[in-house]
Amino acid sequence: MTLTIRRATAEDVPAIAAMLADDELGALRESLDDLAPYERAFAAIDASDHDVLVVAERDGVVVGTLQLTVLRGLSRRGASRAQIEAVRVASSARGEGLGKRLVRWAVDEAKTRGCAVVQLTSHKSRVDAHRFYLRLGFVQSHEGFKLPLS
Amino acid sequence: MTLTIRRATAEDVPAIAAMLADDELGALRESLDDLAPYERAFAAIDASDHDVLVVAERDGVVVGTLQLTVLRGLSRRGASRAQIEAVRVASSARGEGLGKRLVRWAVDEAKTRGCAVVQLTSHKSRVDAHRFYLRLGFVQSHEGFKLPLS
Repeated sequence: MTLTIRRATAEDVPAIAAMLADDELGALRESLDDLAPYERAFAAIDASDHDVLVVAERDGVVVGTLQLTVLRGLSRRGASRAQIEAVRVASSARGEGLGKRLVRWAVDEAKTRGCAVVQLTSHKSRVDAHRFYLRLGFVQSHEGFKLPLS
Repeated sequence: MTLTIRRATAEDVPAIAAMLADDELGALRESLDDLAPYERAFAAIDASDHDVLVVAERDGVVVGTLQLTVLRGLSRRGASRAQIEAVRVASSARGEGLGKRLVRWAVDEAKTRGCAVVQLTSHKSRVDAHRFYLRLGFVQSHEGFKLPLS
């Protein structure tokens, strides 16, 4: 088995969107009939110096993804933070340590970019994910709030 | 009393840093002897199209601040999210509805920028803040994880 974590390209957008939809919560809010909104979002992410969207490829097939965004801020003495969003592992590839490799990649990238902290939120229903992040050394210190606008 | 919410300028950095430090958690991680790191972070935020740092000014004195960052992503059909960070109200100005005005400003700005959701995290110890965000319509749906790197 060869596993590669690499920057996503426009060709990966259908596979990434499919992983986002193949999920209890994602199934309710993704719509794969029209990929144009995903392609537009990909172009904006790809053009940004502060975002990096990666995929994990196993034997030539995309089986995982996450996005890292560097946030600048004044707090913590003007520190940058790395935020992880949209972590997904294809259902066919779960239980093989791929999530751990993806998150470790993100932590290394955050260090390379000089970030003081890596942060993420996880829906309260994803209790397995919470244990996973705790095992990786994250501290479950915050409450996450969302206000949907549409 | 005249209250104005406006984009922060470089001249506001000392007042913003002082509000970040004047806080139970902030006191441990801010350091006001040297403002240069705050000034460098301000310049990066100010130059970014995706960040807006605002201050609330009451009778010519800065008494509140927050930062809004627009995050692009593929999930939710390529939706942008608005993230609120570093909300602070000066201790001299608490209990006057200023926090509510700041957050409502941020929600309006997020709508103007076409975001699908506004999101933020709040330390588990800030229970008053949690009630405040619930009253403003936020849903406390996520767990927030942090991994300090330094």
